[in-house]
Amino acid sequence: MAKPSTPVLKDELDIVIPTIRNLDFLEMWRPFFQPYHLIIVQDGDPSKVIKVPQGFDYELYNRNDINKILGPKASCISFKDSACRCFGYMVSKKKYIYTIDDDCFVAKDPTGKEINALEQHIKNLLCPSSPFFFNTLYDPYREGADFVRGYPFSLREGVPTAVSHGLWLNIPDYDAPTQLVKPLERNTRYVDAVMTIPKGTLFPMCGMNLAFDRELIGPAMYFGLMGDGQPIGRYDDMWAGWCMKVICDHLGLGVKTGLPYIWHSKASNPFVNLKKEYKGIYWQEELIPFFQSVALPKDCTSVQKCYLELSKQVKAKLGKVDDYFNKLADAMVTWIEAWDELNPSAKLPNGSSK
Amino acid sequence: MAKPSTPVLKDELDIVIPTIRNLDFLEMWRPFFQPYHLIIVQDGDPSKVIKVPQGFDYELYNRNDINKILGPKASCISFKDSACRCFGYMVSKKKYIYTIDDDCFVAKDPTGKEINALEQHIKNLLCPSSPFFFNTLYDPYREGADFVRGYPFSLREGVPTAVSHGLWLNIPDYDAPTQLVKPLERNTRYVDAVMTIPKGTLFPMCGMNLAFDRELIGPAMYFGLMGDGQPIGRYDDMWAGWCMKVICDHLGLGVKTGLPYIWHSKASNPFVNLKKEYKGIYWQEELIPFFQSVALPKDCTSVQKCYLELSKQVKAKLGKVDDYFNKLADAMVTWIEAWDELNPSAKLPNGSSK
Repeated sequence: MAKPSTPVLKDELDIVIPTIRNLDFLEMWRPFFQPYHLIIVQDGDPSKVIKVPQGFDYELYNRNDINKILGPKASCISFKDSACRCFGYMVSKKKYIYTIDDDCFVAKDPTGKEINALEQHIKNLLCPSSPFFFNTLYDPYREGADFVRGYPFSLREGVPTAVSHGLWLNIPDYDAPTQLVKPLERNTRYVDAVMTIPKGTLFPMCGMNLAFDRELIGPAMYFGLMGDGQPIGRYDDMWAGWCMKVICDHLGLGVKTGLPYIWHSKASNPFVNLKKEYKGIYWQEELIPFFQSVALPKDCTSVQKCYLELSKQVKAKLGKVDDYFNKLADAMVTWIEAWDELNPSAKLPNGSSK
Repeated sequence: MAKPSTPVLKDELDIVIPTIRNLDFLEMWRPFFQPYHLIIVQDGDPSKVIKVPQGFDYELYNRNDINKILGPKASCISFKDSACRCFGYMVSKKKYIYTIDDDCFVAKDPTGKEINALEQHIKNLLCPSSPFFFNTLYDPYREGADFVRGYPFSLREGVPTAVSHGLWLNIPDYDAPTQLVKPLERNTRYVDAVMTIPKGTLFPMCGMNLAFDRELIGPAMYFGLMGDGQPIGRYDDMWAGWCMKVICDHLGLGVKTGLPYIWHSKASNPFVNLKKEYKGIYWQEELIPFFQSVALPKDCTSVQKCYLELSKQVKAKLGKVDDYFNKLADAMVTWIEAWDELNPSAKLPNGSSK
């Protein structure tokens, strides 16, 4: 059994969990999560009762709650898709968010020790990132490592870290075609590294095991329109990751990937996934060049401003790929409006955005 | 004892070793290196006899040989600095080069097995790179791994790999100031990963444990003017790495870093290093922005053309930083002339460069 760890940032971090089932998976996380506040976003039928193991401090929102809180703006929150989790980011009042899927369990490191994923994410978020130059010994701020010869000294202070992207042992996060081709592949390789994703480089951000600094990047973590009534699914975290990365690059914020690992217990159905993904697989060939070429103007000095500008560019350049992107661009605007409504403290006293 | 491995690419790879001493270190590498041909570049006093353990197939060049072979063009090859190793790249007739320092020994992986560094480099070079998008499970071509969800399918074929940059356990490759501050730091972390350095990202390339495809990138692997008569040292590999990376990015070639590790046995003297490095530490603050902004014209379709264009830009933009860069730019041109002279097969029958 893992020993309960010292709860770092206990009052500054919320754990956001989207779910459609009883949260028995929390039993395994108890030593690590119990000191923290949980925000549970119940997807699907709101009349279903979700059981949460005793002793956890939580608030739970179902679809009725979301509709009540956001009114017509609730249209920007997806239904019947784990994209609904981003509602939890919006209602949180804390500086940091950790979000995890309910089919993710505690993994073990190569010595057999249970990994406190949350603690590692917090470490990642609290130490700087180095997006402007690659360090060959990976995270230079980690104990036993540093910047290597040839790393410019002016870049060694790094930049604030906005996002910490954790990985998964056992079931890898593959798309439906890869799942179909390699049904038995399991990720067994524990790579003992955290690294900054360089400026200008995009990556596939997975929402299964993810932490971020809400104050630095929260409004960019919109998981889009997926699931019920939408033409795609399973691109919620990808969309958020691409939007977030171009905004972090513009604002000089860091994004890390690597440790911590969680144990991903079961693969979703590849046939169902294929149906959800197939338009995404096709569209993504146009999305990536779009995001690679996005340029945000200098006067976009807040995440909100960046995000609204990005929504305009989505409409202008992706609207012709499919009308879905016009809808999505509108939802991006609604999302920011809803965010600002729920987070008035993010406004300065004179009413202008931070 | 490690078992002798099957010698992959036995007739297509040379091992280049710069040295000033007897090559006893080869004893430990015998099971891995003996099938290959060695090119030894003797630095310093040419009258000194370098002993090579019995059973190795090698050619050895000292300063007199270099002067004789290159004539006045020998001025581009550094003296009293391991930068002289690049002469070995030039005289090789093979497709691949592996270069290693004589204070590097066989490392062990976490299971205690001796690491065949050369074999891993060959694996890295023979499988593609993925510079246009980051894969969160690292090398997607490795057994047990693949491209994750959200990775564009059009990018999964990858691009040819030009360079494989290996790492070091024990003594890390730190600059003099870091050596002075952390004299006892040792690298003990075995990170089980190989990754592509993304397009547009520079890194500090270390020449201690490095392999590359001579046909793809050889003429860009010039280690510059260092050591005797020059104002700096210990920036030879860095210079080569920055030049090589912008050319690989331009030509669509891949650069990998990570595995394999070697065991780096002894730290060089930090006080001596500080003297060699101090101008480099200062200049590098201007070099990095320069290399980050280099743009090569479309008609630069060969490594030679790219390199000559780069030499012009070095003269135009770095000449004002210090007159040394004018000298270096000239030496870059001499290097290419010498390369083409020694490698006429790289010319097409009609006399134009490949």
